Amino acid sequence: MPFSMSGASLSVFEIGLNALSAVLDKAEAFAAAKKIDPAVLLRTRLAPDMFDLTRQVQVVTDQARRGAARLAGAEPPSAEDTETTIDQLKARLARTIAFLKTLDPKQIDAAADREIKFPLGGGITGRMNGADYLNHFVLPNFYFHLTAAYAILRHCGVEIGKRDFLGAIPINTV
Amino acid sequence: MPFSMSGASLSVFEIGLNALSAVLDKAEAFAAAKKIDPAVLLRTRLAPDMFDLTRQVQVVTDQARRGAARLAGAEPPSAEDTETTIDQLKARLARTIAFLKTLDPKQIDAAADREIKFPLGGGITGRMNGADYLNHFVLPNFYFHLTAAYAILRHCGVEIGKRDFLGAIPINTV
Repeated sequence: MPFSMSGASLSVFEIGLNALSAVLDKAEAFAAAKKIDPAVLLRTRLAPDMFDLTRQVQVVTDQARRGAARLAGAEPPSAEDTETTIDQLKARLARTIAFLKTLDPKQIDAAADREIKFPLGGGITGRMNGADYLNHFVLPNFYFHLTAAYAILRHCGVEIGKRDFLGAIPINTV
Repeated sequence: MPFSMSGASLSVFEIGLNALSAVLDKAEAFAAAKKIDPAVLLRTRLAPDMFDLTRQVQVVTDQARRGAARLAGAEPPSAEDTETTIDQLKARLARTIAFLKTLDPKQIDAAADREIKFPLGGGITGRMNGADYLNHFVLPNFYFHLTAAYAILRHCGVEIGKRDFLGAIPINTV
């Protein structure tokens, strides 16, 4: 069956996180060419009350790690938010991808009907079935922060395009 | 079966497009309160080589309309890109939602294995199976432009938050 909960989560996260890592490489090259401290890019935000680039990258990995873990019935491992360099953020992306590979796709495939409970902040707990949690919470949040990270760098002038955002998707062209 | 191609597309698009329509209402109220011509917001972009808000909204609807139609085996209806006001963009969102309701979910559910062909520009045709087309092309593109539209308005100072972005998702909170 080619359409599955695991295919709609694990492979999507892996492609997206790898794409973001390559986008950060281009950000680093841009900073070097323009003689800008990369930390300036990492601290850029699109609005004063939005996350900066560092936090967007951290939250993208949180959404993938926590979302996939909960769907697999595993406890999401915590992560310390200590990154201050592009290399450290790339290491966090790589650690997240490595963690995703430890999850059992069959467990995720079996989660469509299972109730998922997750903290929403302020002591509130959200409850959704696994399919809704993936379609209407994890994926929109994942893509929100992935796009925000990309848009911050476009806003800064880094030369990246839609292909950099999409990453290594399974497509044939003729 | 609660996880399906139609559930991962039609309901996602409908919630996202309705959320964007409500975000545009807040943009209109913001412009009125600040005595700003709403057209200023519609022409704002995050970078000179990114789409402005008008075009982001148009492209969000294109991704949903074309993606869902192709998955259903139907020819995507064309749309003229003539909108110059928030009301016209909201009407386009409403027309797109109405069109989605005309599609047969069973046709979309049966498309996971079917090859989807779609134009990529420059005379190039993309080919993906239906599951990959949804997971790795339609959804990332849909969310990219949905997030960009939202981020432009945050950048302009409109008071919207993550709940406005997520919209009326099926969640219980305790």
